[in-house]
Amino acid sequence: MQNFTYRNPTRIEFGKNKEKNIGKYISEYGVKKVLLTYGSNRIKKDGLFDIVIESLKEFNIEFIELGGIISNPVLSKVREGITLAKEQKVEAILSLGGGSVLDSSKSIAVGALDDGDVWDFFIGSRTIEKALNVFDIITLAATGSEMNSFAVVTNEKTKEKYSIMSNHIYPKVSVINPELQKSVSKDYLVYSAADIIAHSIEGYFTAKVHPTIISKYVESNISTVIETTEILLKDSENYDARAEFAWAATNALNGTTYLGVSEYSFPNHMIEHSLSALFNVAHGAGLSVVMPAWMKWYYRNNTAQFERFANEIFGVYSSQEGIEALENWFNKIGTPTKLGQLNIKQSDIVVIVENILNNAKHSRLDNIYTKEVLTQILNNAL
Amino acid sequence: MQNFTYRNPTRIEFGKNKEKNIGKYISEYGVKKVLLTYGSNRIKKDGLFDIVIESLKEFNIEFIELGGIISNPVLSKVREGITLAKEQKVEAILSLGGGSVLDSSKSIAVGALDDGDVWDFFIGSRTIEKALNVFDIITLAATGSEMNSFAVVTNEKTKEKYSIMSNHIYPKVSVINPELQKSVSKDYLVYSAADIIAHSIEGYFTAKVHPTIISKYVESNISTVIETTEILLKDSENYDARAEFAWAATNALNGTTYLGVSEYSFPNHMIEHSLSALFNVAHGAGLSVVMPAWMKWYYRNNTAQFERFANEIFGVYSSQEGIEALENWFNKIGTPTKLGQLNIKQSDIVVIVENILNNAKHSRLDNIYTKEVLTQILNNAL
Repeated sequence: MQNFTYRNPTRIEFGKNKEKNIGKYISEYGVKKVLLTYGSNRIKKDGLFDIVIESLKEFNIEFIELGGIISNPVLSKVREGITLAKEQKVEAILSLGGGSVLDSSKSIAVGALDDGDVWDFFIGSRTIEKALNVFDIITLAATGSEMNSFAVVTNEKTKEKYSIMSNHIYPKVSVINPELQKSVSKDYLVYSAADIIAHSIEGYFTAKVHPTIISKYVESNISTVIETTEILLKDSENYDARAEFAWAATNALNGTTYLGVSEYSFPNHMIEHSLSALFNVAHGAGLSVVMPAWMKWYYRNNTAQFERFANEIFGVYSSQEGIEALENWFNKIGTPTKLGQLNIKQSDIVVIVENILNNAKHSRLDNIYTKEVLTQILNNAL
Repeated sequence: MQNFTYRNPTRIEFGKNKEKNIGKYISEYGVKKVLLTYGSNRIKKDGLFDIVIESLKEFNIEFIELGGIISNPVLSKVREGITLAKEQKVEAILSLGGGSVLDSSKSIAVGALDDGDVWDFFIGSRTIEKALNVFDIITLAATGSEMNSFAVVTNEKTKEKYSIMSNHIYPKVSVINPELQKSVSKDYLVYSAADIIAHSIEGYFTAKVHPTIISKYVESNISTVIETTEILLKDSENYDARAEFAWAATNALNGTTYLGVSEYSFPNHMIEHSLSALFNVAHGAGLSVVMPAWMKWYYRNNTAQFERFANEIFGVYSSQEGIEALENWFNKIGTPTKLGQLNIKQSDIVVIVENILNNAKHSRLDNIYTKEVLTQILNNAL
């Protein structure tokens, strides 16, 4: 077990009706004016927006809106938000939506207190030293952004999808009401399942030293996702399944499953980021394609852990059986496992590999991922 | 899954040599003078004391000593600490030791900023509104006090062993260096194993609604304790086993395994607290006696969860087989399972039951625990 430091400052407000208190939560931090960020107008149609506004008014908190944030959120929108936050002198950001809205909000929170270009922080040329407070009501369980210090944004001009990480961007309070996640489509439910599993396996498979207790936590999250996804596909109203799915999503990337782990990397994410940056595929859909393909190439580097995975998660024994079982499960729930399902052709692989290698300059992808290796992995997904 | 709020403000510094930075960690909070609490002089003999003093001096932090804190820590010592803390105007408490030293330190931290009697907070007649900052280097993995908001103290005059709970007593920084826990005797290792399992099972068995994901986390901690205790009994130098044991101890009572759980109680602890208050037995030794006895009486109230426990932890099927397997395991590692092993006789049961019922006025023990029931449970331990 490796040395570590752990402190997660985010306060979680989990459960039914918690969104009704959002004004109270924000007022506890002395905030009087927020930038209210969201994606489509769905939150206005389904009533969440009105509930939030009412709670903000009750606590005399002014708000300015920034709607229209899209999946695979883009840098231009973050810049628009930064300009607005500065002009309007907002004191915090309130994010209503899923990981894309929240990641944009975190990025705006950083840029709002900075005079330079926010992209500097994504390419690592400067370090984040402050940010506005971020609050959120998370309406899609997938990214874990509600309890972590990461944000991912795509520079749509350069086709670079990069991340920032800083203790300053942990949300202050995150509201997770599983009922607000009921309206998520079946497609996005299964993409989210793939995303959570991806967050779980990156460290689990790539770290040379992975404490058993941490493996057990990871497996708890993965098996919860598998069990609850199957329940939700049959019964989208099942509150407990929705709640456990949501909590697994948060725990998969709030740090608890990466403690004491030796050096690891996020190859599946690095590869997928190029798919979504270039072809705008849903992140989770890209991940369910990349994971089995990557695993088929990688497993010989860590057969003990792949056998453990096969056994603990699917009750089978060999690495290959475990990988096959995961791929079959992705097929069963209806998330893609082949590039063709994302309308990506064999002839596109050259461009994808080039993009990954370009991005690797600013990512944690290690140097075993050569052009040849990446081509082989992507070929596994044909 | 029930609604919940979760935020754990404690920063964990886990791993080798972390104690050498204690002065730095404390100085980050602007603290210039601490009360340094500990138990026996063992920490002076084994060098920890000198390491700590050196680090405090490096950061110009003054210290006053309060040694001699005993297991099942007593109120009179807490009062001595409070007087000293006030007289010397210390700004924080630094606890060097196990759960008893830390719980005393938390209690002193509360009393040092209060003009009344600290025992008021234990009997619930007043609510804790402030406390000095607490820092600790934990030298015994068992109570989980290093990452929670509880403290347990015995009023040795009234034979009451009660607890306080407050967000103000989360340690600011807890240092967990598994190497410092190597010198723990085999007896205290196995008592600690029993204590961690007790923390794990109370909510797991007594809550009517227990989310599956939380059950999985609990089982991860229990199975880690079982596996690592067996390794450590053969090889006390095994760092990774020691580290995983320590981390399981912390996670068993840092709140994560009680989230979303419906109403629960701590009957095994309530019963054991009377054993240790009356007969001064080691808390963990008392718990390994109480648990199988309690389980044999209680299991019919929650057979589904007892069967789950039997299956997930020991690979057996019925409730009874699971309870027997746990009792056998306690016997195997050498922690007591019968009152006689604690030198408690059948004729003592009357007094124990009376003490439990008296304490129940200020504890969470629910009203199913009548005189007859408690007698039956204790008879199961003969």
